[in-house]
Amino acid sequence: MISPDDRGRPWRGSSPGLQGNGAPASKRRAQVIGTGLIGGSIGMALRARGWYVTGSDVRLEQAEESMRRGALDDVGEDPAAEIVFVATPVSSTVRESRDVLRRLDAAGTEAIATDVGSVKASIAAGVDHPRFIGGHPMAGSELAGASGADAMLFEGCTWVLTPTAMTDPDAYAKLQAVISSLGASVIALSPEDHDELVAIVSHVPHLTAAALMTLAARSQSEHAALLRLAAGGFRDMTRVAAAHPGIWLDICKENSAAIVAALGELRAELKSFQDAVHSGDTGFLAAALGAAARARSALPAGAQHPADVVEVRVPVADEPGVIASITTLASGMGVNIEDLHIEHSFEGDRGTLVLVAPVRDAGSLGAALRSAGHRVILAGDS
Amino acid sequence: MISPDDRGRPWRGSSPGLQGNGAPASKRRAQVIGTGLIGGSIGMALRARGWYVTGSDVRLEQAEESMRRGALDDVGEDPAAEIVFVATPVSSTVRESRDVLRRLDAAGTEAIATDVGSVKASIAAGVDHPRFIGGHPMAGSELAGASGADAMLFEGCTWVLTPTAMTDPDAYAKLQAVISSLGASVIALSPEDHDELVAIVSHVPHLTAAALMTLAARSQSEHAALLRLAAGGFRDMTRVAAAHPGIWLDICKENSAAIVAALGELRAELKSFQDAVHSGDTGFLAAALGAAARARSALPAGAQHPADVVEVRVPVADEPGVIASITTLASGMGVNIEDLHIEHSFEGDRGTLVLVAPVRDAGSLGAALRSAGHRVILAGDS
Repeated sequence: MISPDDRGRPWRGSSPGLQGNGAPASKRRAQVIGTGLIGGSIGMALRARGWYVTGSDVRLEQAEESMRRGALDDVGEDPAAEIVFVATPVSSTVRESRDVLRRLDAAGTEAIATDVGSVKASIAAGVDHPRFIGGHPMAGSELAGASGADAMLFEGCTWVLTPTAMTDPDAYAKLQAVISSLGASVIALSPEDHDELVAIVSHVPHLTAAALMTLAARSQSEHAALLRLAAGGFRDMTRVAAAHPGIWLDICKENSAAIVAALGELRAELKSFQDAVHSGDTGFLAAALGAAARARSALPAGAQHPADVVEVRVPVADEPGVIASITTLASGMGVNIEDLHIEHSFEGDRGTLVLVAPVRDAGSLGAALRSAGHRVILAGDS
Repeated sequence: MISPDDRGRPWRGSSPGLQGNGAPASKRRAQVIGTGLIGGSIGMALRARGWYVTGSDVRLEQAEESMRRGALDDVGEDPAAEIVFVATPVSSTVRESRDVLRRLDAAGTEAIATDVGSVKASIAAGVDHPRFIGGHPMAGSELAGASGADAMLFEGCTWVLTPTAMTDPDAYAKLQAVISSLGASVIALSPEDHDELVAIVSHVPHLTAAALMTLAARSQSEHAALLRLAAGGFRDMTRVAAAHPGIWLDICKENSAAIVAALGELRAELKSFQDAVHSGDTGFLAAALGAAARARSALPAGAQHPADVVEVRVPVADEPGVIASITTLASGMGVNIEDLHIEHSFEGDRGTLVLVAPVRDAGSLGAALRSAGHRVILAGDS
């Protein structure tokens, strides 16, 4: 454990040791494993909200650098952390998460662990634990590493959580609350749905940007003027291709099936365009480009936080599985669960899951939950 | 001809008629045909530099609107304009340009005409005239129409000119000077090279954005959460797909061969990626993504105007053809001709083409021109 205090700052005289830490008793405590862009940004965002954050990284100098930049209070491990963010590369997320959970179980704490990997099914399959909930903040930047970390990175972003049949409902509710407090909008998906959907909106677009850039570079070698013709649209479309390949090799490996399928769909779509351009099928092109323009114009401008929300109360068995089925049902309908908590019953193993949802969606959400066999109490119901 | 003056403004009592116009004698005069985004922006940019600009549009109300927005001094035709910008949709550019040139020839003026279409070979084939030089400002915006017009639209943009074997050298030099004065960086390409290159950096990326958006919209219909996962990268990549399809139908028609070829290349590239993801060929993916990242990082940040330029003087026969061969040779080498003019000889039909080029490129440009059979005088040569 290394902290500036250990290196001679006067205001903490004694070495704190692994236990005890330098955290004021009043502060909530979190651990970040992997202090790159995402881990560092989580540290900064939590600290800005009063948390005491301890961080570690396989590269000690990166953790120290993150601490200097204000992402961490301390470098090392905090056995008293109530939440652990595993923010390592996807290729080591399963191993790191299992190690964390083994330590938490050995310590007998109720602490939660989550990760931030860009793929979720392989991680969910590898880390099966009631208090591990996979996560994926849909925020990023071409700036990799600690130097790109930013306390505001998650403001307005969508943060996917992937509860499973074994997820502990209280752990989920607590994690959703912490993540929402960072400014993110939480959405629950099954790990498999997550992987299919990000293949379409992230992984395949990234590979496509690289393919467009490859074509341009090849033509540039034949005609030096080419890249001088690259106006804003081309720059926008290929910007993500500037990213370091490292993370993308992991993603291509871990999400290969969904990526292969989505690339197949894209190639088929481009073949339709090619055929229509070749044959001069203006009707097809007008319809296809028009539909794409309408869809693009309808793209939500970012996470929406409607002012008018209402509680949808669902009495449930207080047991794993229910949280995953209900939250992913809402996501599947496009309903944004703004907040959620569980009111535990004092008797028996039942409780009430309280979903805070936009007023406009409450009726349809209630109806869908009833169709799924739940009893639902909407605000205003008698 | 309609102008605010004709509608009762007091400061100009008599109707000016077609001739005469309201232009102060000291002002250079231009005509803009088609007063949408590009035509309107050209009008604004010229007026900001002291020109008197008259504009017309098949939709009279659009020309009047442009005048109200400050893009025009007058609505109608100006037979005394020294330069005519045909800024109509590509589908009517050939007809409009021919009409303009017929009027100019009938009037016996030396005025120049140019266009702003996104494709050039079909226009060059349809408008064969020594004082018509095809052009394409690589500037745009999702805002179509007069309301998006902006005097600064061309600052720092690349503006392609497509001189041909019959292009009058003086007309070319004059047009390059006017366009450079708007802040644009002029690059000369053959019409065919232009069309191949823009298929790669503009037309195919646009169709690809539409294809990605189509895929996403289809998946959205199956899973309402999809578009909430669309982070900045996806938004950047699909932004151009929001454009009105109209102009793109013309482009697909007029540049079909180059688009079909480039779409074929892109599909082959995506097939390589798909195969590598499927087979787990990390070596291929690392190399391909790495090369794309390096190429993207090397993308010039915009038009460069180096401070250190030098004159490259080329004695030439003062006749058409020479301007196209020399300027496109420079573009093919990636050399940016900052300025160019012709010093006419008083005796015989020879002159000197003076190219202003970056110091760092002057040597290689001179060598290439000598290899092509020209005599070249570099500043500093004895």
